[in-house]
Amino acid sequence: MGSWADSAEVLGSDLPLELSGAANRRAVLTAALRDAVRGGRLAPGARLPPYRSLAADLGIARNTVADAYAELVAEGWLAARQGSGTRVAERVAPDVPAHRTRAPEPAARPVHDLVQGRPDPSAFPRTAWLASARRALAAAPDDAFGPGDPHGRPELRRALAGRLARVRGVRTAPERIVLCSGAAHGLRLLAQVVGGPWAAEEYGLPFHRGLLASHGVGTRPLGVDADGARVDGLTRRDRAVLLTPAHQFPTGGPLHAARRAAVVDWARAADGLVVEDDYDGEFRYDRQPVGAVQGLDPEHVVLLGSVSKSLSPTLRIGWMVLPQRLVGPVVAAKGDREQFSSATEQLTLADFVESGAYDRQVRRMRQLHRRRRDQLAAALERRAPHVRVAGIAAGLHAVLELPPGTERATVRAAARQGLAVEGLGDYLHPGAEGAPHAGGTGATVRDGLVVGYATPSESGYPEALEALCRSLPPAGPSSDASVIPGPASPPPPAAP
Amino acid sequence: MGSWADSAEVLGSDLPLELSGAANRRAVLTAALRDAVRGGRLAPGARLPPYRSLAADLGIARNTVADAYAELVAEGWLAARQGSGTRVAERVAPDVPAHRTRAPEPAARPVHDLVQGRPDPSAFPRTAWLASARRALAAAPDDAFGPGDPHGRPELRRALAGRLARVRGVRTAPERIVLCSGAAHGLRLLAQVVGGPWAAEEYGLPFHRGLLASHGVGTRPLGVDADGARVDGLTRRDRAVLLTPAHQFPTGGPLHAARRAAVVDWARAADGLVVEDDYDGEFRYDRQPVGAVQGLDPEHVVLLGSVSKSLSPTLRIGWMVLPQRLVGPVVAAKGDREQFSSATEQLTLADFVESGAYDRQVRRMRQLHRRRRDQLAAALERRAPHVRVAGIAAGLHAVLELPPGTERATVRAAARQGLAVEGLGDYLHPGAEGAPHAGGTGATVRDGLVVGYATPSESGYPEALEALCRSLPPAGPSSDASVIPGPASPPPPAAP
Repeated sequence: MGSWADSAEVLGSDLPLELSGAANRRAVLTAALRDAVRGGRLAPGARLPPYRSLAADLGIARNTVADAYAELVAEGWLAARQGSGTRVAERVAPDVPAHRTRAPEPAARPVHDLVQGRPDPSAFPRTAWLASARRALAAAPDDAFGPGDPHGRPELRRALAGRLARVRGVRTAPERIVLCSGAAHGLRLLAQVVGGPWAAEEYGLPFHRGLLASHGVGTRPLGVDADGARVDGLTRRDRAVLLTPAHQFPTGGPLHAARRAAVVDWARAADGLVVEDDYDGEFRYDRQPVGAVQGLDPEHVVLLGSVSKSLSPTLRIGWMVLPQRLVGPVVAAKGDREQFSSATEQLTLADFVESGAYDRQVRRMRQLHRRRRDQLAAALERRAPHVRVAGIAAGLHAVLELPPGTERATVRAAARQGLAVEGLGDYLHPGAEGAPHAGGTGATVRDGLVVGYATPSESGYPEALEALCRSLPPAGPSSDASVIPGPASPPPPAAP
Repeated sequence: MGSWADSAEVLGSDLPLELSGAANRRAVLTAALRDAVRGGRLAPGARLPPYRSLAADLGIARNTVADAYAELVAEGWLAARQGSGTRVAERVAPDVPAHRTRAPEPAARPVHDLVQGRPDPSAFPRTAWLASARRALAAAPDDAFGPGDPHGRPELRRALAGRLARVRGVRTAPERIVLCSGAAHGLRLLAQVVGGPWAAEEYGLPFHRGLLASHGVGTRPLGVDADGARVDGLTRRDRAVLLTPAHQFPTGGPLHAARRAAVVDWARAADGLVVEDDYDGEFRYDRQPVGAVQGLDPEHVVLLGSVSKSLSPTLRIGWMVLPQRLVGPVVAAKGDREQFSSATEQLTLADFVESGAYDRQVRRMRQLHRRRRDQLAAALERRAPHVRVAGIAAGLHAVLELPPGTERATVRAAARQGLAVEGLGDYLHPGAEGAPHAGGTGATVRDGLVVGYATPSESGYPEALEALCRSLPPAGPSSDASVIPGPASPPPPAAP
């Protein structure tokens, strides 16, 4: 077990020579004792020297030693019993080298990455964001640093209400906006407040369907064609429908005007809710963005938005534009205090919007994405003219149509080229007609690649495109039978 | 329904005179049309003028009008049918003045606020925080602006591992820390990963118990006395125990050394988990802070911490120091991407810690809180010497002991003085022996006020104390029978 003389030696060699200030002496001694126990140099059960001996050895005051022992006894490192002195507690587990286990070897990273949903992170406007942070922190009232209101900072709700009316045709007031940490957080809250079941586009983010399911809300697939979701499939049993009207995700078209009207009619008749995921509504390249469905009926549509595509997914700020009757329940579902979204970042974003920096960033990103999209189209034109591209009028991704039955093989061929890219099948609702396990006729199964052209760095993009072209199936007899029906741009309106 | 001539007039008066740039002309016309429909000036069903007529009236190109109509048809504001021209869609709901409903009148705010848990927000170190933000944003690698790793930024995990070892005696490595948005988020994740049932101190935050319950984890109350939680009540059925060892919340004492040892023994024998809520471990006034229980056995203790007390609850950053075996499951429970905690703020906090600003802020807050505490003690000494104060050796709140049966009346008396303050009963587990509905003997019911002395502003504090003293029951025959047993400072260790 070792005598206390050993202990003093162990400690002496551990202690630094300079011990300036009484409080500091005690702290240094405490830390040295703790380290010696932890490292196993003072073994469980080992007796420590009496106060006076150690104090004399170290040239410090007796009380300093007593205080250090007392502290370590209170913490459970040492144990003191009347008459038998102070010992190292029996139950302290010494550090094991296992603490230094390295993280598991990461899977080999792909050389090229065209997985959608991740705008090039080098485009983040660091300087402008910091300037907004400086102004926001200087102007913030003290209460901004207290517990956050789950409704969200009024400064940001005001800025968003104005901007969304201007650029998305949204009709709202600051009181009807509730801030959240992103679209996913918004969906969680709506699932809690509205309940299920919901309808959802048969092509969509599995992540969103999974989130809803984890809150007890099942989704029923709605067919998707060239005019967007087939909303005629909605029934009175559906409590809500999750749609991407500006740019169907991921197949790419906007929701047709007649269907916009029809979904609002459904919501009114069935007392249902339209959940409009406006994930990339501002990134439209060949014409003005299509306005939000929310503007048609603010009492039956919730618009969800965030800065993930326009600015960065690293800032966890999103918004819900709500019907009046849902504001109270959604705020209540968030809890008494804001638990997720930082008020300092909300204030920074409010300044970023009000100062015009947000508009500048959106314009800049729109140009960047458009150029990326044009490069993609040109590369395909040159290298794979038999491949049809859909959904490129907007957004941060395109869909490359493939001959039936070739999707999985193409994704595997891409992997062999070091290219990460996903197939349309990765986004198909498992209950969709034609989905592998749905037992349907297979009539609506489509083969395609979802190409996130905003993902690679500027310098890595040409090579990623090269790898993509090399992965595509060659022209064949079936390649001119388009499997994704419909136009890449919205249908022209009838002449007045 | 109105003729198209009326429509032209309505529009003419709505349009601004300057229409510079073709794109802008179309956008302005589109917005004016939308506003006219929205405001009811163009009624549902009203026919719009043909392109050429409106173009001539407004002196703009025919195509500009055609584009604007097409856009509004695509958005669903207008409807076009071959042969019958363009009309306002029937289903657009005009704006109703109800949109301008004001928020409900807020409940009368108390004049004085001594509710615990909210450090004075004016103490936030705006300048130092901004300096850290500037350095962090400049130094951040590009990938910091991509989707966040749910494990958390390595820069902050490294900074925290070093600091927690130094000031809290925590034994860990950066890989074993997982970042989250606060202690509440950490509890949610643990509830998912560990499952129930848990034991919890009979006095504690109802919010935490509610969070666990909402994730299907019931809590069983453990008695609390002057030495902290009575951990001898733990059984092999408990999967975890939620404790506040540094400063029992809210009654105020540190967990006794023998109980620290006992709870580690229980965890080892029962394969249980100790969840150490280190909510205010650094705010200790009369001696060094008691080190974390985590240091005694890192494989059986999770330490939860956040910046809510030390910096601000508005920054949503917390941390979990985990046993090795829980790191993977907790990261997986967070999802594929970080959904809640902002990486830019994580990086800012990493710089704030590494630069020493965090230590300076903690020292500053410690001084501020200690002065507040001393003012409270002095006021009570002067005005209500019969009232015993507990739990003032640490933290941001104190407990004022009251004669049995007087708590609710005292809280009501405070409300009449315009003072918001809570009773001990507000924190009692509903299943605790002696809780109103538990059917127990009532033996452990205690009466007391939980006084959050860090909450008021500097200038408002003296008056809040005055209101508090006026609310307290007068000295009576029962007032010297202490109902909260035990010392306000930790028990002295036995002599070695």
